[in-house]
Parts: sequence; C-alpha cells; structure tokens
Amino acid sequence: MRIGLLTSGGDCPGLNAVIRGAVLKGVRTHDAEFVGFRYGWRGLVEGDTMHVDRHTVRGIGRQGGTILGSSRTNPFEGEKGGPDNIRKTMSELGVDSIIAIGGEGTLTAARRLADAGINVVGVPKTIDNDLGGTDYSFGFDTAVEIATEAIDRLRTTAESHQRCIVAEVMGRHVGWIALHSGMASGAHAILIPEQPKTIDEICGWVESVRDRGRAPVLVVSEGFKFAGMEDAHSHKGLDAFNRPRLGGISEILAPMIEERTGIESRSQVLGHMQRGGEPSAYDRVLATRLGMAAADSVHQQQWGSMVALRGTEIVSVSIADAVHELNTVPAARYDEAAILFG
Amino acid sequence: MRIGLLTSGGDCPGLNAVIRGAVLKGVRTHDAEFVGFRYGWRGLVEGDTMHVDRHTVRGIGRQGGTILGSSRTNPFEGEKGGPDNIRKTMSELGVDSIIAIGGEGTLTAARRLADAGINVVGVPKTIDNDLGGTDYSFGFDTAVEIATEAIDRLRTTAESHQRCIVAEVMGRHVGWIALHSGMASGAHAILIPEQPKTIDEICGWVESVRDRGRAPVLVVSEGFKFAGMEDAHSHKGLDAFNRPRLGGISEILAPMIEERTGIESRSQVLGHMQRGGEPSAYDRVLATRLGMAAADSVHQQQWGSMVALRGTEIVSVSIADAVHELNTVPAARYDEAAILFG
Amino acid sequence: MRIGLLTSGGDCPGLNAVIRGAVLKGVRTHDAEFVGFRYGWRGLVEGDTMHVDRHTVRGIGRQGGTILGSSRTNPFEGEKGGPDNIRKTMSELGVDSIIAIGGEGTLTAARRLADAGINVVGVPKTIDNDLGGTDYSFGFDTAVEIATEAIDRLRTTAESHQRCIVAEVMGRHVGWIALHSGMASGAHAILIPEQPKTIDEICGWVESVRDRGRAPVLVVSEGFKFAGMEDAHSHKGLDAFNRPRLGGISEILAPMIEERTGIESRSQVLGHMQRGGEPSAYDRVLATRLGMAAADSVHQQQWGSMVALRGTEIVSVSIADAVHELNTVPAARYDEAAILFG
Amino acid sequence: MRIGLLTSGGDCPGLNAVIRGAVLKGVRTHDAEFVGFRYGWRGLVEGDTMHVDRHTVRGIGRQGGTILGSSRTNPFEGEKGGPDNIRKTMSELGVDSIIAIGGEGTLTAARRLADAGINVVGVPKTIDNDLGGTDYSFGFDTAVEIATEAIDRLRTTAESHQRCIVAEVMGRHVGWIALHSGMASGAHAILIPEQPKTIDEICGWVESVRDRGRAPVLVVSEGFKFAGMEDAHSHKGLDAFNRPRLGGISEILAPMIEERTGIESRSQVLGHMQRGGEPSAYDRVLATRLGMAAADSVHQQQWGSMVALRGTEIVSVSIADAVHELNTVPAARYDEAAILFG
Repeated sequence: MRIGLLTSGGDCPGLNAVIRGAVLKGVRTHDAEFVGFRYGWRGLVEGDTMHVDRHTVRGIGRQGGTILGSSRTNPFEGEKGGPDNIRKTMSELGVDSIIAIGGEGTLTAARRLADAGINVVGVPKTIDNDLGGTDYSFGFDTAVEIATEAIDRLRTTAESHQRCIVAEVMGRHVGWIALHSGMASGAHAILIPEQPKTIDEICGWVESVRDRGRAPVLVVSEGFKFAGMEDAHSHKGLDAFNRPRLGGISEILAPMIEERTGIESRSQVLGHMQRGGEPSAYDRVLATRLGMAAADSVHQQQWGSMVALRGTEIVSVSIADAVHELNTVPAARYDEAAILFG
Repeated sequence: MRIGLLTSGGDCPGLNAVIRGAVLKGVRTHDAEFVGFRYGWRGLVEGDTMHVDRHTVRGIGRQGGTILGSSRTNPFEGEKGGPDNIRKTMSELGVDSIIAIGGEGTLTAARRLADAGINVVGVPKTIDNDLGGTDYSFGFDTAVEIATEAIDRLRTTAESHQRCIVAEVMGRHVGWIALHSGMASGAHAILIPEQPKTIDEICGWVESVRDRGRAPVLVVSEGFKFAGMEDAHSHKGLDAFNRPRLGGISEILAPMIEERTGIESRSQVLGHMQRGGEPSAYDRVLATRLGMAAADSVHQQQWGSMVALRGTEIVSVSIADAVHELNTVPAARYDEAAILFG
Repeated sequence: MRIGLLTSGGDCPGLNAVIRGAVLKGVRTHDAEFVGFRYGWRGLVEGDTMHVDRHTVRGIGRQGGTILGSSRTNPFEGEKGGPDNIRKTMSELGVDSIIAIGGEGTLTAARRLADAGINVVGVPKTIDNDLGGTDYSFGFDTAVEIATEAIDRLRTTAESHQRCIVAEVMGRHVGWIALHSGMASGAHAILIPEQPKTIDEICGWVESVRDRGRAPVLVVSEGFKFAGMEDAHSHKGLDAFNRPRLGGISEILAPMIEERTGIESRSQVLGHMQRGGEPSAYDRVLATRLGMAAADSVHQQQWGSMVALRGTEIVSVSIADAVHELNTVPAARYDEAAILFG
Repeated sequence: MRIGLLTSGGDCPGLNAVIRGAVLKGVRTHDAEFVGFRYGWRGLVEGDTMHVDRHTVRGIGRQGGTILGSSRTNPFEGEKGGPDNIRKTMSELGVDSIIAIGGEGTLTAARRLADAGINVVGVPKTIDNDLGGTDYSFGFDTAVEIATEAIDRLRTTAESHQRCIVAEVMGRHVGWIALHSGMASGAHAILIPEQPKTIDEICGWVESVRDRGRAPVLVVSEGFKFAGMEDAHSHKGLDAFNRPRLGGISEILAPMIEERTGIESRSQVLGHMQRGGEPSAYDRVLATRLGMAAADSVHQQQWGSMVALRGTEIVSVSIADAVHELNTVPAARYDEAAILFG
C-alpha cells in the first residue's frame, strides 16, 4: 500500500498534524508507505513528489503551514490533468491511493476522481467552517482564538478613546468565525453573510452602546452584505483606474458608522494571520485524529468518502452527501448570539 | 422571576462567562432578576448574597475565576442546610429558582434538591471532563491548551539535555486532559487512570524513544495507577513523621524511570495553573451558550435538568441520567492515541 | 499634596500600570492624594475629573488601555486652555501638581506649562519608541511581541504557498518596531523610515530568498519611503473622488514586488492591535517603575522633568533636553540587522 | 577562520538565536566557518562535533532549546580535559577559536582556557539574570513572561476560593525572576534570597491582604531563606530514608502560612517550564545581537572577553571583570517593589 498525500487550497493550522496522523497510523498499523505530492493537485498532475516517512513528520504536528506546500490547481485542467492522466501518473509512481486534504473545491474534485475509479479519500479543511458533514473542521478553532485575542486587544484602545471599532474576520460565505469570536470577545454586534442588516440597524446597536458610555465593538465577516442594497462591493465605488477600490467591508462600514452616528470609528482587517501559525491544542487533536482516520479509510477502501467529526467521534461520510451545500450559520444560532448585542 | 446563581467546587475557566450568559439572557428575554449566592452552596445555606445585574456582568466573560466565589460546602449539611431550610431562605430572599454551576457533587445535590421540590437547574462544570451527558464541559479546552503549551516548553529542555520529562496534568479519575494534551504535544506515552500500565511497559516506550536519539516526553494524569500493583499512593511510602509523602505521581514515576533505564528523568506537576486564568475562545463560547440555555431552562421550569453540549447543539438533559456515571476515556480513544506512542 | 493624573495621545499598553505605580507610591510613601483628569488634557482644561485612590487602581496593572481615557486635545487651545485658565482650574479643584503621561506633543505641552510656572512632571509614552532621553519606553516591548507573533503566523502561510509577505508595523517616523520584530521573526528585509531603499534593492532581497527556495518575509514601518522618489504617499495615486487612496505602504509595496519579480505577494497591515491589550511583563515592570518614580519626582518638585529608563535604572531628566529630537534607529543598528537580510 | 560553538549548562530560551546570529554574522561578514560541539564542553573534550552552516541555522532563532545540546561537563576534568588536550583536539579538528555560551561556570572555564592561551570568547547565559557585566541576559525576559502568565492564572483561582497562593519561581542565588514577575503580576509579597524575612513578616503581609478581602499572592524565589533561622533546607527535615525531603521552598511556606494565619494556602512550583520553549521577541533580539557580536569578538581576537548588554548597546567586556561576583538584586530595587506589598 503506497498512499499519496496532498494539501490543496488556502493555508490552515493543522495541515501538518493531519499529515503526521495519517503517516504514523498508516505506517504503524497498515504497513503503508507514503509519498507527498507537492503544492496540491499540481504535484499529482505533474508527478512532483517528495519523500514522506515517519522521520519526515517528526514534530510537525505543532507547526503551522504544510510541509507539502499548497496551491489552487484544479486536477481536471491542463494537459496532464484529468482522470486518465492522473491514473497513469499514479501508476508510474506506484501510488495506489490518495488522501486529499482540502476545502470544497478539493473535495468535489476528489469525489469526481473517485467516480472515475481513482482511489481517493478526503479530509475536510476550511478555516471558515463552511463545509457540511462535519461538526467542525480543523483550523477553525485556531482562527477563532487568534481573532478573539486580536479583538480583546482592539477593545481596550476603543475604550481609551471612546471609539467604535469594526474588526473584520474571515468568512466569505459563512459567518462562523465572526459568530464565535464575536461571542467570545463580547462584541456588541456580529455581522455575517447569512444575516444582511441595514446600516440603520447597525447604527442602532452602536448608539445604544455609546449611550451606556461604552465603546462599541463590532465583528464583521468579510462576506457580510447590507440588507436591501446591492452587495457590499457596490458600496466600494471605483478608483481612479475604474477598478473596484481595494479594502474589506470593515473599511466601508467604519466611515459609514462615523458619518451617521458621529462616533469616531476605526476598522481593522485581521487577515491572513487567522490562517497561519501554530494550531491550537484543539485543532492539533482534531487534525491528528482526522489524519489517522483517513489512513483507516484508505485501508478500508472507502473511496469517495471523507472523514468527519460528529460529536466526539470521527466518522466516515460520503463526500457527495457532505459537500452538496455550505455549512451556514443557522438562524437560531445567530438569534442566540443577538441577545447579547447592543 | 428572581433567579439565584451559585458556583460551587474547584475553579474553572468559563464560570464568569456562564454567569454573564445566564444574566443577559434572563434579563433581556425572560424579564428575570438575579441574585448571586456567595461561595457556592454556602451562600445559599447562609443567605449570603450579592447583587447581580447586567452591569455586574460587564466584561466578565473574558475573566478567569468566579465573581461569586466558590467553596465545597454541601447544602445538605450543617444547621441551616437541607431542603426545608433552603426553601425558607429562598422564600425570605424572594428567590424562586436556582442555577447551580458545578461538578458531580454539586449536580447530585441539585438533583436531590429538585427531588425535594426546590426549583434547581444545573450547569456542568469540570476541568477534567469527567461528567456524563455532555460531549465536553467548559474549562476543559483551556486546561488542555495550557497543559499543551507547558509540555511544548518542557520538551525543548528535555531535548537539549537528552532527558526524559514526565509532565503531570489534572485528572483524578479520568484521563481526558492527559489524552488531549498528550496528543496535541506529540507525547511518546500517555498514562491515564483508565489504563493502568506496568513500569516495564512505560520504560519500554522510554527506551524506544531514547534509542531513536530523542528525548522521551510522557504525560501522566494525576490519578494514574500502575498495573498489577497497589494504587500509586502506596508507592509513595511514608515520610519521617509516618505520613504519606507529598508529591504527585510524576514525582514517583520520574525516579523510577531513571533508575531502570539510566535516562536522566525529571517531573513537572502543572497544577492549578490549569484551572485558573482567562478561558480560551472555545470555552468562552461554550460557557456563554450554556449560561444562556440555563436561563431558558429556568424559564421552562425544567427542574432537575442540566444543560449540555451534544455535537454543536446545547440541549437539556436530566441530571439523574447524566451524572450516574463518570465520563471515562473509552478504550478505543486510548488505543487510537497509543498508535503514536514510543 | 493632591496630584492630578492624565493620559494623553494614542493608546499604549502599560498606561494603567503607570497610574497604579504612581498612586500606590504617592499614597503609601508621600501621603499624597490623587485625582484623575478624564481624556487627557481635555479633562484638565474642562475640569472633568474622576476619583482615583488605591482601590481604583486595584488589579489595573495587568490591563490594557487607560482607566482615565485619552484624547489628543491640546491644552493651549480653546477658551479654557492656556496656563492661566489651567492654573485657575487646578486651584478650584485643589490640585497642586500634574503627572502627564504622553508622547512628544504631551511632553512638549508639559514643558511649556512648567515654564509657565505650573507644577508638571512627565512620563514618556510611545509605542514607536521615538522619544529621546530614555532607552526604551513602555508599550514598545508589547508592540514588538504582538508584531512578532503575527509575523510568525504570516510566515507559515507564505511558505505553504511560496508567496512573499509584506507585514506592515507601526512607526510613522522611526523604525524601531520594524527593526525589533523583523529581527525577532527572522525577516528577510526590514524597511524603515530612516533608511530609504529603492524598489530594486527590495526586489533584490526578495529574489535572493526565492532563489534559495524560501518564502520572502518583509517587515515594513508604516512611515517607510522609497529612496530617490517622492514620498510613499505620492505612489498611492488618487481615488475616484480625487482623494489619496487609503491603505498602508505595504499595500503599495506588495503589488510592486509581485509585478517586478513575478512572486505572488500579499500585504498585511497589523494596525491597532499593536497598541491595545494586556502589556507584556516587561512593560508592566517598566511602567510600574516609571509611575512610582513620577510620584517621587512630584514629591521632589522636579517640575519640567520626565522619568526615563537608563540601563537598568529609572532616572529623572529634563523634558527640554529629552524631547528635542526624535529617537531614530542609528545607522549602526540597521546595518547590524541588515547582515541577516536576503 | 573556523569557529567552534558550544552551549553549556541549563537550557535557556534564546540559545538557538545566539547560534544563528553568530553563524550568519561570521559567514557573511568574516568569511568564517563553523563547527558545533555537541553537549557543551563534553563535545569539545571528546571531539564530538556536528556540521553547522547557514542552512543548519535556518529558522532556529524562534525555537527553544539548543540544536547543539547541552551538559554540565567541566572541561578541566576527565582524561581528555584540560588546556593541553583541548588545544590538541582543536588542532585536529582545524578549529581556531571557540564561542562558549553559558553561565558562571562556563564563563569561568572559558576565562581559564583563555588564560592558558586558547582562543575563547564567551556569551553570558542565565535564566536567573545572576551574571555581572551585563544589564540583562537572554532567557530572563522569557522566564519572567512565563512566570507572570502563570501567576496571573493562579491568582484567579486564589480569589475564587479566598486562598493564599505561593508561586515559586527560579532563582537559586538571586531574586530577579521573582522581583520582575512579582511586580508584573501585582504580587502582595516577593521573597528573594537577598532579603531574608521572618515568617512573622510574611504572615503580616498575608493577613493585611486578607483583611482587605482579597486573596494573597506571594512570589518566592527557590533560593529564599528565612531570616534568623538556619537555611530553608533545614526546615524540610528528613524523609524516611534520612535524606532531605524533596520539594521547593513554596511547599514549606504554604503550610506554615496556613497554620499561622488560618488562611487556606496552596503552593505551585513553576519549574522547568520557565527555561524551555520559544523565546520572547525581546530575548530573540538580544540573543541574536549577542551572537553576532560574539562573531565580531572572535574576528577581533578578544580572547577572554564576553559580549554584554549595556543600555541599548552590545559591548565587549573582560570575563574576569564581569563574572567575579553575582548580579544580586540591589536593596534599592527590592525596597522599590516592597512599596507595593501587603
């Protein structure tokens, strides 16, 4: 048994712990060998590999990033892409099966390859926690922790100056990081893609906080959109070169709040910091367990499946079932948090 | 509706977040008032209260400890204890119901009081994660994170000196903190109460690590016991005053390992650090949600119930069902981790 | 002896520790009383005060922000400003003397007030470490630590994707935060206001790193300017409304690097996070000592002086001598660091 | 120029940063080559070396421990020890000079070797900050930061339970870690080797804190001794085997306080955690600079010197001058802190 490993898509704390878990479980329990494909599907398509064994994975469970590298290459594109070429490349390299660690695009590609008869197992990876089929995915806890620490810091400055602070966290399509980091840091409002709000509602929260003599702290997902208006990008206008102006939603929102409420307002885009660096203990445990379970899934030939967290258990689910829709924040979870707003 | 709040038993990161969640939810949704009982059941028995309203709980979700104080007082003991006295005290204070935040002892007392007709709802609290009925309890994630950071630090020193390090974490009856912090820190062996091991097995792991040129890192629960021997305390012998010698199991284990393997070995008891200080973002979210749900349980008059985490949901369960047995580490979870040993 | 305390200018970790140090030393050693002026010089000018005693300062040494609030009000402006009005306000409030905690503007104002016969003592406060007369000022160590942690996180993502990362830290006029956080995080180039560089030099470092197969990490002060060109702002062009486009120097630099080298490049402005939140232990100690020494300076009637760190000692220096020029990064310190570039 | 590097004595955060700084400076500026001696002087005496070049030191500035390993071997002892043997070993290995990174013992040995004509330069290393000739040494800031974080955590638990907590930090002969971490964490008393106190004085502080309704927090150096009594070890009595009982001074002190004041008291030995793991940004900068300066000292043939921090500068001083006495806490520094006690 010779298993190919690849990590695809954006960086995520815990990738290395998945790799370590899969390798140690595969080597010790299933007598497997491993090969690493470099830079995601690109390595598979181009046959760009690196040696991976138990020595390679020593101590990496604590490290951010991925020793394999990552990219956003699509395995169905390019001259060497597609199932037939991939099958041939795998055969030449003596690789029987693949563990693909990635987000929605990666898992969808993995499923299509499995449908085409290639032996693939998936491990869900998403900072944003936007994948279905699993309670949480690794990297999310670290992102929430980093965002929370940053918001805690921003808050004291807001209070010293009686300012409003708008902290922008990751979440293009779903608001999980905002929801959790906002609850954890005691934000006065949380704005997420699933729950468009008008600028009036937002300013209502801000003024209510100000009227109690406090400094308003807002947490906003990058993908938040205003209610009853075109999408957020349309607010950004165009720059001198007729291109959409750069900058996140927080950089639009803060001046709007300042203009309407008269409260000095500042924005802070937390950015890539949320997806790099050492994983939290929670994510190290989850990622290690997922990696080990993925090695088991290969051993059991569960092609087209992915490993997932359900309650306290790691289970195997069909990628097709899991990835068909985004894991959005349910209205009940938002309403629960909204009790704390204002 | 006037709700009494109390925190009982050992300190736990997230207690203040529970209090804040319950108060804000109760005040804003259920039009409730709150009163705090000081130092756990003692405050209830003695009628020692403090004012608690939405201003009292400002900003406390981020803080360690409990603004109410805690103690290990048993509400059934003492002159003023027992259901009849408590009912009378509550009546005098105009308190209709109680939210009791505590561990097994507290929840068992809460259930007995509920059986006696007193309106009590419980919130499970345990650093050790030893309570049934809930996937995880707040405080556990913080404890694992702190232990993991400490073990990461101890490891580098062990490696500089080619030593074996034995890190002792909390867990008198169950090994969850050791299991998770050990997995997260890449420990070479994890020793927990549920899985007695002989000193020979332990030294086998240590020697295998040493033979690969590395410094062995062991994580041991305070309640670990050797297999085939009397309990750990019997190893401790007696001191000059014929009292059992002080010190944790790691302080017994390290010299035993050194004597048998010849590898210089050091122990470190992580101690109370694991149960104090700011909660992790995970625990702040979980504790806030549990507190809010407890206010709902009071509103719904679910006496004798406790709030609990199941998957991603907060649910209400019967204390009687939940607390009847310890939440021990299942053998499958230990075996999963043991693949990584040695 | 009744001393007025005020904090002025931007937020800085350690402000509360200065306040606590001054109050405890003043109360316990010099039998002083204290009053807090709210929001910097504004509180003094408007007679807006808060009670401050030893109970007020309990536990605040560990907290970010300032319990007094801050603003950028100039005490010489406005109807109630100027020495005569201030002397009258102080007299009405029974305040004999003032401890003013702030940056260059604040200290210059303090000196002018002292010249006009008002009893003022200064405490230097600057995140940027741009004040003369003191080896380091409190807040700087915390800012460097936060920036370093963030850069460590950004690095792993850069490496996973073979990208160049440009991290922008505070430092409008001096490059100390960039110098120290860049050295601490092992940056491949550090760009500071004192050392203009051409885009060619910068791309030279970037390419040299890439050629060794690594991901270039650059740290840039917000005030960095290109050599041989108009200042950085001129690169920013104008937006659709004919205003300079928003965004930091890193947001200009990253696309320039990408265009010239072909290396995918990302920027991250670390922002206000660097000036909020809990102070590091180093800053707590330094700030506490400075606060205590300021109470001594008042007792010794050293008007127009400020407290300062020299080696391991806290000394008193003339504001006039200390603040006359910026504490820039000496060329020798930059050259020392530059050995590590590329 | 071929320089041997060694790290000797206890682990200390920043050792790897010194190594990296020396190697990069030596290679890039002085065209030097490097060889690592493994496990301190032992590697030199036994000719046990490892290859060290710029690739070896990649990324290690952020890591705890030492890639060279350490031991407490004395280079003047053993068959192969002593200047003549060492000179011969160096000659065989083609090593011209040595950079020895270590504490008092190491530096004294370095000086003796220099006196015997061997080309040695020293870098002072001490967690405890007990070396003369330098304002601070690397590792100390990290130790203080870790201790402070731990004491912050212990405090909340003490307050929840109205307990007294006695936190024991490193410092066998000098009290710097206790002084700084005690000031930073707002301890109610700091007990250090330089300032013996009676148990009555200590209990006086404890009771004064309790009487204000607070939980007493004491920080004690491991080397603290009671005033007017034999040394602390004599309090420890003997165990069943007629050996001094194990355990730190805090484990003696806590029960004494509890017995005399009636306040429940707990001890916590922070232990080796203080000397392992990632260095703080401060220590990374200091250690890197010291390493770079050591390479310069070799280039300038300043045998028998060590590098040192004076104010903001790195200087070269004679080991003989620097190490002749311990860097103890001056009485004035203790008195300054003592204002905050009680």
